[in-house]
Amino acid sequence: MGSFRGHAIPGTFFFVMGLWWSIKSTLKYVCKKQRRTCYLGSKALFHRVEILEGAVLVGMALTGTVGEQFIPGGPQLTLYKEGQWNQLTNWHHSTMYFFFGLVGVTDILCFTISSLPASLPKLMFSNALFVEAFIFYNHTHGREMLDIFVHQLLVLVIFLTGLVTFMEFLLRNNVLLELLRSSLILLQGTWFWQIGFVLYPPSGAPAWDPMDHDNIMFLTICFCWHYALSFIIIGMNYALVTWLVKSRLKRLCPSEAGLLKNVEREQESEEEM
Amino acid sequence: MGSFRGHAIPGTFFFVMGLWWSIKSTLKYVCKKQRRTCYLGSKALFHRVEILEGAVLVGMALTGTVGEQFIPGGPQLTLYKEGQWNQLTNWHHSTMYFFFGLVGVTDILCFTISSLPASLPKLMFSNALFVEAFIFYNHTHGREMLDIFVHQLLVLVIFLTGLVTFMEFLLRNNVLLELLRSSLILLQGTWFWQIGFVLYPPSGAPAWDPMDHDNIMFLTICFCWHYALSFIIIGMNYALVTWLVKSRLKRLCPSEAGLLKNVEREQESEEEM
Amino acid sequence: MGSFRGHAIPGTFFFVMGLWWSIKSTLKYVCKKQRRTCYLGSKALFHRVEILEGAVLVGMALTGTVGEQFIPGGPQLTLYKEGQWNQLTNWHHSTMYFFFGLVGVTDILCFTISSLPASLPKLMFSNALFVEAFIFYNHTHGREMLDIFVHQLLVLVIFLTGLVTFMEFLLRNNVLLELLRSSLILLQGTWFWQIGFVLYPPSGAPAWDPMDHDNIMFLTICFCWHYALSFIIIGMNYALVTWLVKSRLKRLCPSEAGLLKNVEREQESEEEM
Amino acid sequence: MGSFRGHAIPGTFFFVMGLWWSIKSTLKYVCKKQRRTCYLGSKALFHRVEILEGAVLVGMALTGTVGEQFIPGGPQLTLYKEGQWNQLTNWHHSTMYFFFGLVGVTDILCFTISSLPASLPKLMFSNALFVEAFIFYNHTHGREMLDIFVHQLLVLVIFLTGLVTFMEFLLRNNVLLELLRSSLILLQGTWFWQIGFVLYPPSGAPAWDPMDHDNIMFLTICFCWHYALSFIIIGMNYALVTWLVKSRLKRLCPSEAGLLKNVEREQESEEEM
Repeated sequence: MGSFRGHAIPGTFFFVMGLWWSIKSTLKYVCKKQRRTCYLGSKALFHRVEILEGAVLVGMALTGTVGEQFIPGGPQLTLYKEGQWNQLTNWHHSTMYFFFGLVGVTDILCFTISSLPASLPKLMFSNALFVEAFIFYNHTHGREMLDIFVHQLLVLVIFLTGLVTFMEFLLRNNVLLELLRSSLILLQGTWFWQIGFVLYPPSGAPAWDPMDHDNIMFLTICFCWHYALSFIIIGMNYALVTWLVKSRLKRLCPSEAGLLKNVEREQESEEEM
Repeated sequence: MGSFRGHAIPGTFFFVMGLWWSIKSTLKYVCKKQRRTCYLGSKALFHRVEILEGAVLVGMALTGTVGEQFIPGGPQLTLYKEGQWNQLTNWHHSTMYFFFGLVGVTDILCFTISSLPASLPKLMFSNALFVEAFIFYNHTHGREMLDIFVHQLLVLVIFLTGLVTFMEFLLRNNVLLELLRSSLILLQGTWFWQIGFVLYPPSGAPAWDPMDHDNIMFLTICFCWHYALSFIIIGMNYALVTWLVKSRLKRLCPSEAGLLKNVEREQESEEEM
Repeated sequence: MGSFRGHAIPGTFFFVMGLWWSIKSTLKYVCKKQRRTCYLGSKALFHRVEILEGAVLVGMALTGTVGEQFIPGGPQLTLYKEGQWNQLTNWHHSTMYFFFGLVGVTDILCFTISSLPASLPKLMFSNALFVEAFIFYNHTHGREMLDIFVHQLLVLVIFLTGLVTFMEFLLRNNVLLELLRSSLILLQGTWFWQIGFVLYPPSGAPAWDPMDHDNIMFLTICFCWHYALSFIIIGMNYALVTWLVKSRLKRLCPSEAGLLKNVEREQESEEEM
Repeated sequence: MGSFRGHAIPGTFFFVMGLWWSIKSTLKYVCKKQRRTCYLGSKALFHRVEILEGAVLVGMALTGTVGEQFIPGGPQLTLYKEGQWNQLTNWHHSTMYFFFGLVGVTDILCFTISSLPASLPKLMFSNALFVEAFIFYNHTHGREMLDIFVHQLLVLVIFLTGLVTFMEFLLRNNVLLELLRSSLILLQGTWFWQIGFVLYPPSGAPAWDPMDHDNIMFLTICFCWHYALSFIIIGMNYALVTWLVKSRLKRLCPSEAGLLKNVEREQESEEEM
């Protein structure tokens, strides 16, 4: 993991998941709003998608857990060797992946066995995030200032994501909380890339000066720009999905849609006041 | 920004916005209470006001973002110059303004496109405040004790405002939370002025002794007095707005109002128990 | 304030208020439960009690604010004298009292003017507590370990009281939250006494060794014992009030009460499941 | 308590209680789901179980409180001896046990006297946990790094348990919060064992090197593995209890159960969307 690639891989993973979740949440919300006029998205479809999502999560987590153990120079499942702990950093990463695997398993179980409480995956997901934040918090003992700072920001964003997911668990079906979570996941993804660029510049340039206060001042706003970027991505996503659903709706049931949309729009604005 | 004027301008901005929000919240609340007897404030009016508010926010944020870049001695959009970061403090301020601009944009979008969730601007506003608190928190690396202390208090009030705004996002239409937020925004505004007076006395007097513990002891209660002042402003505001609405109501529909008010008053007290 | 009496007076004040609030909450709760059978407590009475409570708070706060200024050796309203701040500790205390006075004023206003939101006094009370916690937090710059520790515990209990009061503001009419707040207020009261005994032993004995770790270890559990004591006081209170209300009820309407109580009891247990 | 046994005993206690609570919560939830078709678990039975639970808690707490005082070398109720505090560590433990005893007493009172609010035991339990966390937080003044770290993790898990229990108090009857609490209690139990193994190895081996950073890195993930274990225990528990209830149900009312289950399942999935 102590390499550019080691940060780019989980970064890409989180970015893709964040993008996918923002699309799913928007789609669900828009379909629900439109459903009064025309049935587009069916519950069964969303169920199957959730199970697929769980399978993907399990697959990714398994790859991660096993990969961290068996890469050349990895611990190869040996925890204690020659009187000292054996490559604990890799064990840390394996543990994080394992908890995300648990989320995938719960996802699959919850959407196949109907007697399980439906908000269990949310709880497990917030647990996995809290565990990730906890491990990263204890990950950088004895490193240098810049290294600690970028990881602290990572802990901050992971902790906040866990908090938002826990809120989602308590208050179900709030689309804005879901999008907020997606934006934080996107931020985590791009921030992993940023850490890679800062600590292990891929161009072969020397790493940033770890004791320079200006670097910290810059990374502070850089973090905010990443966040702004994730907002813009989600906004464009939302516009695109809404436009796609509406255009598809018009093709399928052109006459009613036009009529009913006005009625609906008024009801909406009524509710929202 | 490192000047009296640099603190007075955002201070004035926040003070004016806080005042305006406290008026708006009170007006909305009083109109809602009176509406049972007489229709005064219309929904359409409030919608138009929100859009105007968004436009003002965007305008202010744009002025701020651009101003911080192009004032004489500003970074002029150059981030990295001659092997080091270029005036990061101004970039910090630009970033903060940018997020407030995003709030304005969301405000306009949400009240023109009815399919967007109505509580989105609240979420964006709490985000902008959290980002502001985060940036100010990392803003004072390596400064002196007094400077750090007054900025820490600023971070405290901004963070609390963000928290209250997030609560507003979750629990909509609670007038007291709205007034609490307004009072915290007022506090932020007057505190910016106080920082200006402490660090860059406009009278030309020397700055306060940055290592004197007594200055910190005084600024602690000074902060509380600012808060008390913001309460008093909001209280007077409330009294004034209520009196205006009621007097205008009496002129418009004198007979029913008198009769119905008693009925209503009893219902109110019933509900409030 | 730097004396035994200076800690005993606010201690007694908070203890009495805590006791009174626990009685009021219990009485309200028991009356509400019994009301289905027999009307004992009337709303009007509770209103008048609230106004009286507000008046008492204003009176106490006024005494405190003025007393801190005009005691022999007090600042006598002079904030800045001979090139330095004038007795800021007394100004700190005056500020705290002033905020509790504001609570009293809001109490009176809210229960005389019916158009004001009914939960305003709760919000003001939680604000007054947060301000008190904030001031005490910045109160002990440059003192000794034991002094700081006992004041930190004070800050902890005040902050928690503020938090519970804020929860009461959001979730109205939860009797257990009210009793929890009363217990924390009682704890604050007895802890003020404890601080007086630790820092200014009234018997004339020398103050406790401020650098002894064992003193801190003891005060940790002592704090918990105070808390346990406040629980026991509230429990006894509850038993007494319930017994009084029930016995008075039996005298007034003996036949129905007996009959209806069984019905009611079943309904209760139904609800509580 | 400064021994392996002193950590194993409370560890076992918490483990057993966590296991029992997870069984009870699952049983209650499954019975409630099945009740629409067949009445299995009765309210009266659950009431009696709660009272028994309270009695067990009181018994355990009494044993603990008294045991800590009268073990050979204990303080024997003497708080101050020969000019210094007498074995405060044991007094700390006694205080913790006492608060858990209070929970037991409230449990018994609440389920025998029906006029008491039903969520009182939850509040008392969260209070007991917060007190425990507070005492452990102030328990390790002046010890070594590893000792402090393992106790900090203990404080973390106890504080989180208190927080979850407080949430349960506010949001009643959320099965997932109950299971989350059980899992945290299980974690606390196994972590007590872990502390025993780290600080007082029972095999007679030397204690772990208290200044080795690698030990802290390992204990970080070890803590997460304990947590994962508690999840697995609760999952297996859930599967077992569900299977038992369903199989018993089939034996009792075979015909209707089959028919109704399908109907019910659809309703469930409807609700859960």
